[in-house]
Amino acid sequence: MSQQKQQFVVLTGSLRQGSYHAAITRALPELAPANVQVSQLGSIGEFPLYNADIQEQGMPEAVTTMANAIAAADGLIIVSPEYNYSVPGVLKNALDWLSRCNPQPIAGKPVMIVSGSPGNFGGARMQYHLRQILVFFDAKVLNKPEAMIGQVHTKVEELQLVDADTREFLSKQLLSFTVFASH
Amino acid sequence: MSQQKQQFVVLTGSLRQGSYHAAITRALPELAPANVQVSQLGSIGEFPLYNADIQEQGMPEAVTTMANAIAAADGLIIVSPEYNYSVPGVLKNALDWLSRCNPQPIAGKPVMIVSGSPGNFGGARMQYHLRQILVFFDAKVLNKPEAMIGQVHTKVEELQLVDADTREFLSKQLLSFTVFASH
Amino acid sequence: MSQQKQQFVVLTGSLRQGSYHAAITRALPELAPANVQVSQLGSIGEFPLYNADIQEQGMPEAVTTMANAIAAADGLIIVSPEYNYSVPGVLKNALDWLSRCNPQPIAGKPVMIVSGSPGNFGGARMQYHLRQILVFFDAKVLNKPEAMIGQVHTKVEELQLVDADTREFLSKQLLSFTVFASH
Amino acid sequence: MSQQKQQFVVLTGSLRQGSYHAAITRALPELAPANVQVSQLGSIGEFPLYNADIQEQGMPEAVTTMANAIAAADGLIIVSPEYNYSVPGVLKNALDWLSRCNPQPIAGKPVMIVSGSPGNFGGARMQYHLRQILVFFDAKVLNKPEAMIGQVHTKVEELQLVDADTREFLSKQLLSFTVFASH
Repeated sequence: MSQQKQQFVVLTGSLRQGSYHAAITRALPELAPANVQVSQLGSIGEFPLYNADIQEQGMPEAVTTMANAIAAADGLIIVSPEYNYSVPGVLKNALDWLSRCNPQPIAGKPVMIVSGSPGNFGGARMQYHLRQILVFFDAKVLNKPEAMIGQVHTKVEELQLVDADTREFLSKQLLSFTVFASH
Repeated sequence: MSQQKQQFVVLTGSLRQGSYHAAITRALPELAPANVQVSQLGSIGEFPLYNADIQEQGMPEAVTTMANAIAAADGLIIVSPEYNYSVPGVLKNALDWLSRCNPQPIAGKPVMIVSGSPGNFGGARMQYHLRQILVFFDAKVLNKPEAMIGQVHTKVEELQLVDADTREFLSKQLLSFTVFASH
Repeated sequence: MSQQKQQFVVLTGSLRQGSYHAAITRALPELAPANVQVSQLGSIGEFPLYNADIQEQGMPEAVTTMANAIAAADGLIIVSPEYNYSVPGVLKNALDWLSRCNPQPIAGKPVMIVSGSPGNFGGARMQYHLRQILVFFDAKVLNKPEAMIGQVHTKVEELQLVDADTREFLSKQLLSFTVFASH
Repeated sequence: MSQQKQQFVVLTGSLRQGSYHAAITRALPELAPANVQVSQLGSIGEFPLYNADIQEQGMPEAVTTMANAIAAADGLIIVSPEYNYSVPGVLKNALDWLSRCNPQPIAGKPVMIVSGSPGNFGGARMQYHLRQILVFFDAKVLNKPEAMIGQVHTKVEELQLVDADTREFLSKQLLSFTVFASH
């Protein structure tokens, strides 16, 4: 592990302005250990729908910028809702673009996953699909603790993650991830 | 089963002009039984990236048009590649929009899946993720035969599905689906 | 639908004497609609570990008996815990044996799934793996409602399913399954 | 990495005497790098069907013996067929027992997966289910290369893995695993 701060970047899987997951993303920097810096990546809403014909004309700039930021980081954090029992299309679309970058920026990269849902499962179904996708990417995904935040709508107020238990849980997950990513 | 022709509509999960899956989609009408009419749905490339804020301003017209066409059909056929061990983001994005339509058009609808890949698996990993998504939609998905077309690049020439075995297999699958969808 | 009572049989995926899932299985007959009879299948604890060499010497009697009972029924109900994020080995072992029977008794058979867990997810992860397995079997699996019973240990007392909400939910699921199985 | 030989142990997921997967297991020691020793674990056919009542009376000796051998090893290799689109019941049963050992022997352990099938997919569906199970175990699973051996029946003769390409592929996978397990 370097003497310098570890740098983690966060990909948010929802585009809604008032997104609960954007609120979680914004909370992560203050929940991380002192020696860790957490930065948001740009919006995946800037990516076009994946189309190999577009790719042939040149990788979109938003894709290249995000790929470079991920490649430069010590770890990638994905914070996303579940849509219809799986990964949101907008998040998968972003991953489909990133998979075509050369070098592929998630290869060998430590990854931590956070999801939430209004129900009891906290996005669990999304996470197992995402883990299969990340096998393709050859990512190094943190197993435990798994952050699946149920009743997420009760834990965010005025665009802030306010629930103390969730904040403490995410602090612990970030600590585990920091250790995991430094090996 | 009505005396009239059964009407199936096809959703294609790839946007590339020269797409192998678009070639498969185009072949289906001629491979279907005599009493069945197969029509292409519009392009999912017309859908914006899913964003609940956009949805609140009104469902995009391309989404509503496709939802109505699916609702009016006797069955839905999804023809799609696999991207990164799962459903393409562009296809999942289309499904995410369709899931928000009221009535949700795939509820109770017979669905048949076709996928292909340049490798040996023919998109199998995509199909099992798609099946889990379709539980959410309460779709009625054909189990057998499963159409997973390996080495798909060798079976399409000049934008036409030319491989005789694949054409025969898809004819049989369409026949099974016709029986399945008529119950 | 026949004028006679519909006959459903129940496979329980846990061998423990005081099993919560055995308690759920025992509750189902009284929760079913009036025109439905629900019977327990024999114990999957009678099956040997699957071994093709044993199979060649003749299918074990416990397997054949269960296969015949399933084949004769109008629907199969599977009530099972989740072990280690998937289907219990003992349940999968039973299914592996049943898959080798000729005729395969679950082909085309309506199936309803119930699971529970001490946590919040109620065995959800098990159910999606089981659904993939049931594609192989060509089963006709009920989509909705999904019965995933969280905190199952608080809902069973003295080997009886006592929680009123869970009992009402399972009554509704059985009603849906009765309609589903009669088509 | 220690100066001593790395020690890997192999769990075979099939009980059949003439098993193709047992043949693969037997081939691994000679395909491994020079500094690696590969040993077979005992047969999972010695395990009873999992039952918490048996566990309360004391963990079966075959389970404890295997757990100790895994705990002492530098890595675990799982070689298994796919049954009915998922993990064989007999293999899952063994994992269910191992999950109850204290300490749980697969926690943090490097794991490599090999599967084969008579068809084209080589057991792919089994592997993704197994990977989800191994998240529970907190295992450290090798991503690439994935060993999914299609047409496995043509690659084994007289109980020996004879196919040169498969042997070379497994040598490479073992080399990757040796590096992976030494971090």
